Amino acid sequence: MEIKSIGMLLFEDVELLDFAGPLEVFGAANYVNDKVEYTIQTVAPKKQVQISKSLLNVNVDQILDGQSYDLFLIPGGFGTREIIKDDAMLSLIKRTIDKSQIIASICTGSLILAKLGLLADKEVCSHHLAYDVLEKLDPTVRINKEARYMDHGNIITAAGVSAGIDMSFHLLKRFYGDEFASTVRKYIEYYPEKV
Amino acid sequence: MEIKSIGMLLFEDVELLDFAGPLEVFGAANYVNDKVEYTIQTVAPKKQVQISKSLLNVNVDQILDGQSYDLFLIPGGFGTREIIKDDAMLSLIKRTIDKSQIIASICTGSLILAKLGLLADKEVCSHHLAYDVLEKLDPTVRINKEARYMDHGNIITAAGVSAGIDMSFHLLKRFYGDEFASTVRKYIEYYPEKV
Repeated sequence: MEIKSIGMLLFEDVELLDFAGPLEVFGAANYVNDKVEYTIQTVAPKKQVQISKSLLNVNVDQILDGQSYDLFLIPGGFGTREIIKDDAMLSLIKRTIDKSQIIASICTGSLILAKLGLLADKEVCSHHLAYDVLEKLDPTVRINKEARYMDHGNIITAAGVSAGIDMSFHLLKRFYGDEFASTVRKYIEYYPEKV
Repeated sequence: MEIKSIGMLLFEDVELLDFAGPLEVFGAANYVNDKVEYTIQTVAPKKQVQISKSLLNVNVDQILDGQSYDLFLIPGGFGTREIIKDDAMLSLIKRTIDKSQIIASICTGSLILAKLGLLADKEVCSHHLAYDVLEKLDPTVRINKEARYMDHGNIITAAGVSAGIDMSFHLLKRFYGDEFASTVRKYIEYYPEKV
């Protein structure tokens, strides 16, 4: 399918690299393609969002209100622990999920998807410190502790924090092919040091 | 030396991952250490900064005005092309550099350091699309096109965009040792997929 719009959910105490990694990759992809392939919006329940550990204060593009996106990205962070107890916020997120085509979580964004029943019987990824919470939210979930991401077509889950970058490259390959993904990789020089 | 304060320079058209990568690593390090080891501030010539490719709009912590930091981080992005032509901005940045202990650039943040004469005769890293500009700004510079970063004690330069993450882990090792850096690496699950 053609991706014309990308939405990135933000919320109080979202983890910085969870959303900044994918935003960089998809932003760079738009840029190196020499034309705008899709719109990218940050979207949150309120205009101003404090990022986890007070690292950044962000003014979002849109107030969350049932927007529809071709790709809706749901990052993690400590804020997700509050969201899964907040029915109003959960149904707000659900409205946009229902109107969107592909949903991808990063890190503990998976907790929101699990709480909404969207991961039932699926093999998924999440942050290693949230495996227990995830399994309590949905005991039918199988956690893949090795993979960087699991792709089930219109539901994708990435592992913790930096795994969102690898997931984004995977999605670029899926949408636009290996060669284009390599061009973007080169632009952001994503050839990490060996551990 | 002991790091008690970290400043991250922001400016119009700064590249998102250039600063978000290091902020995540140093923010996570502060967190997993179970006590605040250092303060982290974003600092810019004005309160609100538009990030490159309009990916994000950020409210910074401090207006740039000769602050002093133990570690002053200078990211890159298209905005650096304007800064190197802007004498007022350059001397504003220079005031904080002069009062800071360790200066680390990411990506085309190196252009600012070169323009200020701080990279003379040094082997440095930068973004591959800026090698020519860097060499014109200071012909005595030698560019290392393979390394992720070059560390000259109180001047460190990282390669393009995502290399700031690797440079940050290098600095964590230097300041706090390998084991602590590994703990932070685990927290943000920075075990990238092989290319």
